[in-house]
Amino acid sequence: MRSLEHPEPEEMTLDAVLSALADPVRLTIVRQLADGHDDQACIAFELPVSKSTSTHHFRVLREAGVISQHYRGTAILNGLRSDALNQRFPGLLDAILAAR
Amino acid sequence: MRSLEHPEPEEMTLDAVLSALADPVRLTIVRQLADGHDDQACIAFELPVSKSTSTHHFRVLREAGVISQHYRGTAILNGLRSDALNQRFPGLLDAILAAR
Repeated sequence: MRSLEHPEPEEMTLDAVLSALADPVRLTIVRQLADGHDDQACIAFELPVSKSTSTHHFRVLREAGVISQHYRGTAILNGLRSDALNQRFPGLLDAILAAR
Repeated sequence: MRSLEHPEPEEMTLDAVLSALADPVRLTIVRQLADGHDDQACIAFELPVSKSTSTHHFRVLREAGVISQHYRGTAILNGLRSDALNQRFPGLLDAILAAR
């Protein structure tokens, strides 16, 4: 089974996390993950972009450390890395999720 | 006296604020403003970029609502808009300033 790379909390940088979150499509993904359960397939997100653009957005979030991605068969399941984010940047995720 | 435009708190968007903060030079400016007093001239910041690039970074921060900029003679004085940020996005600035 292929696996995808995820930064450890101490490897996450504030630049990368803020850059990852500074996009309306990626904020939509993060909010949907925060509102629902984990392990949502990419296909479960209704995003106003093409599949390849959507794949790019998920990858940016994963490489910054914001979400986890794991293969299940041919699907990729996504989860919010709340614990890692709260450990590395306390209060940041809550402040962003509270913003409307 | 010329004056520069600043968004009202309700006009600020999370995208723009996060984009403005998602840059190491701009985070340096914000941290220096948070650590020191307000009304620091652009020339008081030791930034590893050219003057024109530095001017660009200050403008991005102002247009997002993160800093204020006001002319005093030919100098531009900068201040952190902590109150506006805390009103519009509670907890966000504190979480970002606490991150290292």
